[in-house]
Amino acid sequence: MNIFFKKKNNITFNKILSLLNVKNEFKIKNFLLNDIKTLNSSNNKDISFFNSSKYKNDLNKTKAKIIICNKIHLKLIPKKSIPLVVNNVLLSVSKVTNLFYPDAINDDLDHDVDFLNKKNNFINLSFGKNVLIGKRVKIGKNSSIGHNSIIETNVTIGNNCSIGSNVIIRKSIIGNNVNILDGAIIGKKGFGFFPTRDKNYRYPHIGAVIIGNDVEIGCNNTIDRGSLSNTVIGDNSFLDNQVHIAHNVKIGKNCVITGQVGFAGSSEIGNFVMIGGQAGISGHLKIGNNVQIGGGSGVVKSIPNNSKVMGYPAKDIRNFLKENK
Amino acid sequence: MNIFFKKKNNITFNKILSLLNVKNEFKIKNFLLNDIKTLNSSNNKDISFFNSSKYKNDLNKTKAKIIICNKIHLKLIPKKSIPLVVNNVLLSVSKVTNLFYPDAINDDLDHDVDFLNKKNNFINLSFGKNVLIGKRVKIGKNSSIGHNSIIETNVTIGNNCSIGSNVIIRKSIIGNNVNILDGAIIGKKGFGFFPTRDKNYRYPHIGAVIIGNDVEIGCNNTIDRGSLSNTVIGDNSFLDNQVHIAHNVKIGKNCVITGQVGFAGSSEIGNFVMIGGQAGISGHLKIGNNVQIGGGSGVVKSIPNNSKVMGYPAKDIRNFLKENK
Amino acid sequence: MNIFFKKKNNITFNKILSLLNVKNEFKIKNFLLNDIKTLNSSNNKDISFFNSSKYKNDLNKTKAKIIICNKIHLKLIPKKSIPLVVNNVLLSVSKVTNLFYPDAINDDLDHDVDFLNKKNNFINLSFGKNVLIGKRVKIGKNSSIGHNSIIETNVTIGNNCSIGSNVIIRKSIIGNNVNILDGAIIGKKGFGFFPTRDKNYRYPHIGAVIIGNDVEIGCNNTIDRGSLSNTVIGDNSFLDNQVHIAHNVKIGKNCVITGQVGFAGSSEIGNFVMIGGQAGISGHLKIGNNVQIGGGSGVVKSIPNNSKVMGYPAKDIRNFLKENK
Repeated sequence: MNIFFKKKNNITFNKILSLLNVKNEFKIKNFLLNDIKTLNSSNNKDISFFNSSKYKNDLNKTKAKIIICNKIHLKLIPKKSIPLVVNNVLLSVSKVTNLFYPDAINDDLDHDVDFLNKKNNFINLSFGKNVLIGKRVKIGKNSSIGHNSIIETNVTIGNNCSIGSNVIIRKSIIGNNVNILDGAIIGKKGFGFFPTRDKNYRYPHIGAVIIGNDVEIGCNNTIDRGSLSNTVIGDNSFLDNQVHIAHNVKIGKNCVITGQVGFAGSSEIGNFVMIGGQAGISGHLKIGNNVQIGGGSGVVKSIPNNSKVMGYPAKDIRNFLKENK
Repeated sequence: MNIFFKKKNNITFNKILSLLNVKNEFKIKNFLLNDIKTLNSSNNKDISFFNSSKYKNDLNKTKAKIIICNKIHLKLIPKKSIPLVVNNVLLSVSKVTNLFYPDAINDDLDHDVDFLNKKNNFINLSFGKNVLIGKRVKIGKNSSIGHNSIIETNVTIGNNCSIGSNVIIRKSIIGNNVNILDGAIIGKKGFGFFPTRDKNYRYPHIGAVIIGNDVEIGCNNTIDRGSLSNTVIGDNSFLDNQVHIAHNVKIGKNCVITGQVGFAGSSEIGNFVMIGGQAGISGHLKIGNNVQIGGGSGVVKSIPNNSKVMGYPAKDIRNFLKENK
Repeated sequence: MNIFFKKKNNITFNKILSLLNVKNEFKIKNFLLNDIKTLNSSNNKDISFFNSSKYKNDLNKTKAKIIICNKIHLKLIPKKSIPLVVNNVLLSVSKVTNLFYPDAINDDLDHDVDFLNKKNNFINLSFGKNVLIGKRVKIGKNSSIGHNSIIETNVTIGNNCSIGSNVIIRKSIIGNNVNILDGAIIGKKGFGFFPTRDKNYRYPHIGAVIIGNDVEIGCNNTIDRGSLSNTVIGDNSFLDNQVHIAHNVKIGKNCVITGQVGFAGSSEIGNFVMIGGQAGISGHLKIGNNVQIGGGSGVVKSIPNNSKVMGYPAKDIRNFLKENK
């Protein structure tokens, strides 16, 4: 269940066909759909999508009832799912998501926040001046929140967390013993839209930011929430100042991400990954476990476990050093 | 007319000669000057300057009455303008600008702001806690402003705009349907000064930030205002988080600028330009229309229309890929 | 004396031996230690450490009574100091620092701040709304502080300083005529810790941020305080927006650091150094005087005086330009 966005419950197959302007070629009887999800999280009443061969594995294992795809991928769709062929998969997904979750396009001002005061019944919470807190926020024991910070409606924060000053947190679930330093902005909608000549078409971001235990998020970080899936920071990972994490990125456990590193959308980073300052990680990549990425690198390909890379584009660090001595 | 800075109206030719310590070799009678402007915006009562052959075209078309220049450019000055030869053009321009606009060197604290409340007569404005609003601010219909944001004196914001929390806007004119996300700082003076051994000499920034319609400005962006001309973001351009835009940069329409991209001063970017994450654009360049710049690129030369470039320094993307496969 | 952190005064040699689990092989009688310091600032009642041959010069001149080191460096320790051999020097230093300064691991919420008002006796201080000011803060004459800014306990700010809005300053000493622009975060603990599988071990940061006279710090800068020594910005140095400076970095006088530049920890930058946008400087380097570093460069080696470098990794700019024309 999505605690951050209200889902519409009366979405039928026919409604989706008409929204996407697709003919019901298979003469399938109308039925009710439950939700829109990624391939690997779909159940048999959900609609999902397939748009890149990178996700073939997920496709073969999915339980999704309907899969939005384009013509060239039609033959890959498993028999047990109904293919729904469109011209622009992502735009169609966006429209369907908007049908289920009409409030997730923009980050409208949270009018439900109010100044935190001692009447709020958080256990042993220490807090500064001008803290704003939304409705149904959960905060564990012995945490603290700095001055001028804003914790929006439905956010969850664990025990022993230290939230700095001027921090903004929305659409996020945060574990125990997490430090979020001053000026960090967490849970904003991702930078996702379809450019058009007249007015870009923004797509909804119904994912959350999920932060594990013992994490540190540096000053002025920006961590965007996911579009369909979540943005995730694993246990015991530490992020330095001015790091930017785009929507759907998954960072594993025990990672060390130094200053000004940037992640484009949807990349998955393993455990025990160390990334030097100002490195950039392109979108939709898989970075293995125990990988070390040198400062300033530009990573444009997936990287296997236990690799050390550096350079722009990033390559095996021995080759980089040989070529640059 | 400059709505953000008060102009002095009694500046004469002789006053400028004496300020710059220049002799009136041409025995020109004293006269009143109207303003200091760039070559292409000057009228025939204005003073302007020429300092780089990149701006030769502008020089030939200018209506400026007086043109500050150095000795080697003297012969290029059109007959209808009066050349004013100095040793350091930019320093001289700065001094003259300061004569016309004595309040534009520093961003002094705006004491005219006060807490926004329902008595302010904005039409259907939705706003958060602790919003500060300056004098003579104009805000269109159906806009919203998040918590702790500061909109300084004389700023204009259009209809249906969504300003996030912790945003600071000064010296700016913003169109309709614009989203400015949390933590963005817009309209600060540019990073412009003359280094000297004892104390750097800051120059005035009398330009504004002009933002078109349907624009999105990401979290923690910093967009500096112009020195003599304006910093401009064209209609329907979207900027991701942590983008930095220096003074006088002009970004065209329908551009997509992803996370952590930086622009040095005075570059002009065309329409439909897409720039990947962490790319940097040097100063005083012209980037054409429909240009694509790969993530992490360092652009140090102007780029013609319809090009795809990548690399540091940026080159044709086919060459970059060939050299790096 | 450290004005920002309270030091414990009863730390003995035996207490340290037992903390680090080291046997007293030399049968040295117990004695009281005064403080933990870097080699070059230690006196003869202090404990220090040696961990890298880069600091051999400091080692030969140090007055430290005890020097923590590992086995392979044992023979380098001068006769007049007592070596204390451990497996992990930095972890041991961290534990000893924590013994002397138990409050320097985290940046706990400063509960001593309160809203600045006219009863505070600062001379001719101009200030905005919602300014928070800690205990024993010193502010010189004719300074100003913008809206929502937070100046924590014991901070010192000089005369004629202009602090912007949404600024956070802690553990810092700031000279005269300094401009700190909106959104800057100064004096946060550095990104220093020992990764372990279960829970990273943070080390204390007992250093301050020391900012000279006539300095400008740009919007959204993050300047971390030092671990044992201070982070320093020299007189008349100017920093553009979104610059990141890690712990212990020393920047000389008259430097110009443009947008989005990042410094890893402990590097020393000379005087009159100019650094182009988005350049990155690795840790523990020495950059000489009058050095120019091109935009986007990745500096991984120390650079002698009067050099011009560019590239990733940075090299002599003539070579970079030759190879890239």
